Amino acid sequence: MSGSVYGNIFKISTWGESHGNGIGVVVDGCPAGLPFSEETVQPYLNRRKPGQTQYATPRKENDKVHILSGIFEGRTTGTPISMVVYNENQRSHDYSQIASYYRPGHADYTFDQKYGFRDYRGGGRSSGRETTGRVAAGALASTILKELGIEICAYTRSIGPISIQEDKIDLEYARQSPLCMPNIEASKAAEEYIAKKMEESDSVGGVIECIVKGMPTGIGEPVFDKLDAALAKAVMSIGAVKGVEIGDGFQVTTRTGSENNDQFIIDSDGNVAKATNHAGGISGGISDGDTIVLRAAIKPTSSIFRPQNTVNKENKTIEIQIPGRHDPIIVPRAVVVVESMVAITLVDYLLMGMTSRMDRIKEFYKK
Amino acid sequence: MSGSVYGNIFKISTWGESHGNGIGVVVDGCPAGLPFSEETVQPYLNRRKPGQTQYATPRKENDKVHILSGIFEGRTTGTPISMVVYNENQRSHDYSQIASYYRPGHADYTFDQKYGFRDYRGGGRSSGRETTGRVAAGALASTILKELGIEICAYTRSIGPISIQEDKIDLEYARQSPLCMPNIEASKAAEEYIAKKMEESDSVGGVIECIVKGMPTGIGEPVFDKLDAALAKAVMSIGAVKGVEIGDGFQVTTRTGSENNDQFIIDSDGNVAKATNHAGGISGGISDGDTIVLRAAIKPTSSIFRPQNTVNKENKTIEIQIPGRHDPIIVPRAVVVVESMVAITLVDYLLMGMTSRMDRIKEFYKK
Amino acid sequence: MSGSVYGNIFKISTWGESHGNGIGVVVDGCPAGLPFSEETVQPYLNRRKPGQTQYATPRKENDKVHILSGIFEGRTTGTPISMVVYNENQRSHDYSQIASYYRPGHADYTFDQKYGFRDYRGGGRSSGRETTGRVAAGALASTILKELGIEICAYTRSIGPISIQEDKIDLEYARQSPLCMPNIEASKAAEEYIAKKMEESDSVGGVIECIVKGMPTGIGEPVFDKLDAALAKAVMSIGAVKGVEIGDGFQVTTRTGSENNDQFIIDSDGNVAKATNHAGGISGGISDGDTIVLRAAIKPTSSIFRPQNTVNKENKTIEIQIPGRHDPIIVPRAVVVVESMVAITLVDYLLMGMTSRMDRIKEFYKK
Amino acid sequence: MSGSVYGNIFKISTWGESHGNGIGVVVDGCPAGLPFSEETVQPYLNRRKPGQTQYATPRKENDKVHILSGIFEGRTTGTPISMVVYNENQRSHDYSQIASYYRPGHADYTFDQKYGFRDYRGGGRSSGRETTGRVAAGALASTILKELGIEICAYTRSIGPISIQEDKIDLEYARQSPLCMPNIEASKAAEEYIAKKMEESDSVGGVIECIVKGMPTGIGEPVFDKLDAALAKAVMSIGAVKGVEIGDGFQVTTRTGSENNDQFIIDSDGNVAKATNHAGGISGGISDGDTIVLRAAIKPTSSIFRPQNTVNKENKTIEIQIPGRHDPIIVPRAVVVVESMVAITLVDYLLMGMTSRMDRIKEFYKK
Repeated sequence: MSGSVYGNIFKISTWGESHGNGIGVVVDGCPAGLPFSEETVQPYLNRRKPGQTQYATPRKENDKVHILSGIFEGRTTGTPISMVVYNENQRSHDYSQIASYYRPGHADYTFDQKYGFRDYRGGGRSSGRETTGRVAAGALASTILKELGIEICAYTRSIGPISIQEDKIDLEYARQSPLCMPNIEASKAAEEYIAKKMEESDSVGGVIECIVKGMPTGIGEPVFDKLDAALAKAVMSIGAVKGVEIGDGFQVTTRTGSENNDQFIIDSDGNVAKATNHAGGISGGISDGDTIVLRAAIKPTSSIFRPQNTVNKENKTIEIQIPGRHDPIIVPRAVVVVESMVAITLVDYLLMGMTSRMDRIKEFYKK
Repeated sequence: MSGSVYGNIFKISTWGESHGNGIGVVVDGCPAGLPFSEETVQPYLNRRKPGQTQYATPRKENDKVHILSGIFEGRTTGTPISMVVYNENQRSHDYSQIASYYRPGHADYTFDQKYGFRDYRGGGRSSGRETTGRVAAGALASTILKELGIEICAYTRSIGPISIQEDKIDLEYARQSPLCMPNIEASKAAEEYIAKKMEESDSVGGVIECIVKGMPTGIGEPVFDKLDAALAKAVMSIGAVKGVEIGDGFQVTTRTGSENNDQFIIDSDGNVAKATNHAGGISGGISDGDTIVLRAAIKPTSSIFRPQNTVNKENKTIEIQIPGRHDPIIVPRAVVVVESMVAITLVDYLLMGMTSRMDRIKEFYKK
Repeated sequence: MSGSVYGNIFKISTWGESHGNGIGVVVDGCPAGLPFSEETVQPYLNRRKPGQTQYATPRKENDKVHILSGIFEGRTTGTPISMVVYNENQRSHDYSQIASYYRPGHADYTFDQKYGFRDYRGGGRSSGRETTGRVAAGALASTILKELGIEICAYTRSIGPISIQEDKIDLEYARQSPLCMPNIEASKAAEEYIAKKMEESDSVGGVIECIVKGMPTGIGEPVFDKLDAALAKAVMSIGAVKGVEIGDGFQVTTRTGSENNDQFIIDSDGNVAKATNHAGGISGGISDGDTIVLRAAIKPTSSIFRPQNTVNKENKTIEIQIPGRHDPIIVPRAVVVVESMVAITLVDYLLMGMTSRMDRIKEFYKK
Repeated sequence: MSGSVYGNIFKISTWGESHGNGIGVVVDGCPAGLPFSEETVQPYLNRRKPGQTQYATPRKENDKVHILSGIFEGRTTGTPISMVVYNENQRSHDYSQIASYYRPGHADYTFDQKYGFRDYRGGGRSSGRETTGRVAAGALASTILKELGIEICAYTRSIGPISIQEDKIDLEYARQSPLCMPNIEASKAAEEYIAKKMEESDSVGGVIECIVKGMPTGIGEPVFDKLDAALAKAVMSIGAVKGVEIGDGFQVTTRTGSENNDQFIIDSDGNVAKATNHAGGISGGISDGDTIVLRAAIKPTSSIFRPQNTVNKENKTIEIQIPGRHDPIIVPRAVVVVESMVAITLVDYLLMGMTSRMDRIKEFYKK
């Protein structure tokens, strides 16, 4: 099956392994006439690239993007946009040891079970490096959203036990925080927490939140292709994500209907609005014009320096210590990945959303 | 867009509104030769049908299924299976009032925004009655899982503040509990809690958990079509779901890697197994042979008897009281819906999973 | 696999067997607000229904359509439209004989090979009756095309050796011809030809042509989803079709480039046009604004009264005579089926075609 | 829409323009464990590469393939295989003239209408060079077919008026013929014919035939995804194709049922077979085990040296002479493209075909 293709109209196809020749994405279905270049993409890739803070692997990779097709005279042509980042840092480690056993928390075992063998160099296709293609496509999607006046922003909502209260979120600060946390105290506290766990040769997890402002109303499809369902899949498809919430998420389960229902009001411009946004901007699978709110639970990095028990291919129990340079936390680097998957999904749904009303279709095709 | 079609190989297409002529599903891609009949489907539909306990709407519907195609001499033929439940209870309420305003927590407003108007009778397509088609298809999928020795079971894990500890789960009791709760004390406490909220003309929510035993290893696709991503979409597409977790879900965000990694061990049969199952049976998007564990957050019923404020189509603020017969909680009736969506997704992935290895394909096509 | 679902945005799912309970279609992705009713569909179904002329099986079927969902107050709601024709005429023939052998030219053998067994009553799912669902969906698609000012028309271009010259086509006459032939002499000659072959207990084939006027320019996708490629699949998927041509089709293979290239000109309105239309209105897979022209080769009916040799399930050679009431030619009844498949495909492509330019998308989403 | 993605399970995504940085394909869904390398692909690309005979453009391109992902230790890993051919020969012609007008028979006008502008250098995405990605993917598909014992072979059946009789086909000779014609006299006559048209600064067309031997029975899906329908789309999606036939194609329209039905017989091995193969190996959309036969009508090359009339972007009529190096005929270079599209489609259908019977699925998943 084609697990590396995503989207209905705005369709992306990613490829590449951690230690192969490169990693890339082909985007098909991008509208023509959008100004776009390598300079547009690079800042997005830089946000996920390693070696930038002490809370990420010190591995150095330039992650320089090359656009191979689909752009002419600075604009998208409507034909597929192929983007590639050539791998520079595939120094030949000795992977023979890793090849022989299954790392706890990794996909080594399941890949072997599915495919009969695996490219074990640096995790192969199941490496976090796989997300490079998602971010390149996300840069393109985000550029489209900007053109339509839609703002998207993801950030670290919590790390380990350190969480930010709703009313303490300072999006400006998130840009400066090495952990993408939108609150200075939380960010500092989290840095300390991570430093402590690094000393213990351990890793930590956290929660990423993504908000979208300016989304038109009426986008999303009832039943199976609800906008929130699509977002859930998009975000859950990122390697380390174990849970997804829309709006108030699991909190709603302990509320009553009268507490949880968002009452409709007329806002100061005389438009329909909501008094609260427990629903997170989506009702019945369709955007209601309010801020879309989504959260993803990110597990602690599986690769840790501590000795661990596992089994090898000869079905023997062994103790291992995973060599290499690990991220003590992947949350900050995953922020742009979550944002990318949300952006890609929204663009796809905005394009699909043009076809739901006969009067608008007639208007569109009228000369 | 085609928001009412779901699946890749095992593909279902549902249709129907709350107060139209009926509600149904067409299943395409079901393998041939499976024993199947209306008698197989009916018990699944009965589990979601209203009017069975005091904690559900007293509305009476027989929800009798009719199979119109795809079965011959008691077995599936491989061609589309069309199943329909004719609506019996579309007594003509006066819906003119409901037509004029937007019920809080409902999709009235977003449907109008998307489509320009809506079938307002009983919620139309956004009614919970839409799930009838899912359950009929789920009965078929569950029958296939049984043939393959895979057990699937969903139940109520919590209602409002009443939650069941992991070690107190008694799956046998869930069958007797009017709330599908697998623990007698919790079930009784929840009944009291609901009764109290009903007196207050309010509604409550909860968490549904679904577990799957006997899933083969190696099922799921890396990257976008991860098995957990697909399950997240499947379950989030159910009307009232606001969050989805796989395995330990959001709990993992406060753990360290050493706490969260599932160590591989050799079990008593000499096979690879895991010492713990924090991952919930899926690693890297692929089943690892362990129990699949999934949870869905269900919001409190939006329709409540209490007076609420909202706006009408003339952009005026009004107070409303929603007429009709509402479920004080939809969790128990939604249990079989969650189970159905999981079953449908697993069958689809099992079919796709046959094509991942060249040696097995050669074996298959060898005469 | 899901061979009974068709389309990308305008997606149809057909079901039903010749002698089951009924035959139907679910259309998902139809835009909201289109006036539509059973009265709109029925005339299309009547065009394919049997028993109307002496050149069709005398089998009587009312083929009355019932719309079960997706319409409210006379208009489409944007949610799935379920249409069904209940079978009335499944009188229990004795099919035990047919069950035991493979009819030449039929799918009996291949169904058995694929599925292990088959619903042998009247051909089951491989019966021509399967096209009922296509025509119901085609009626809906045709209604959309009309709203957009696009005219579609199919007719019989040839029967056996009797073919109509390009300049002798009289579309008005096609409506009166019992064979849907747009020329009175050809129609009479073909009637005689068929009568003669009927006396010989044999059957005949022919060519159906379909033309589309008023198609906007710029519709279709380059590369794999070319408009002509999609039309070829749509039409080749009809049971008896063995060949498809666009524009001048196979004739172009004996021409030179200078003969075959359509020169661009400026028409009397000052617009770009073409001096000729060898291309059949599609260039590079995209509509050029000219008339779309397509032809389908229809084989002679497989079911004939003549004795034929074949083999039975015990691998014995036998002589058979197929019982029942056969069409001596299926071309006239297939005309509306070809038209339907073309209409469905065009609507799907028109909807997809809204998303190809960034400037138009911005315009669409501008308040 | 995503017109550059093709396939259901074996899914390919092509990209690239004639004069961009390169041209390529990503194949997702290829089974793991297949021996595959650049050496396997190159011979297929060489068959379509220009500059090899006097009947093709003298343009020199090495068309050297690079595999960037999906292969490990000489075998496919089951993850996406990215293949690229970097463009070497994009010497900067002065394309300003071509940019200003619409070449007859080309997609210049329709691309402008669809996208608002176009990459006019050498035809951009609508160049025949687009097929490079198809052939690279076709090499992979053909390798899978070989593993399964299925033989596929395409060749030139006719050029202009020179056609080869069924009984004169000599597949061995096709390999030597510069025109891929399987008959020495026909090949010589066609060479003369082309030479003559070249002198007249004109171009010619022809028919490509493709046959497949060893296809298992029971592959293909009834109704919309018939195997012949899929093949028709696959082949019609190749730039210059204007018609497709399966088996005897348009010839069947002048036959009677008794002439056209293939009678079943018992062959010398005691198996069910057919006395004739008018159907071309597919019945009811499903393979019958006989040789699959398909033909494609290829139009004469649109680019000719002769002066032609057309219009420019200022809506003025002008006379043009297209600069550059044109193929006088594209049939011989398109042979491997047709073969590739057929191979890709068959592999996709073989993978889908594994899921049609419950007994086989149970067998597959039995430990």
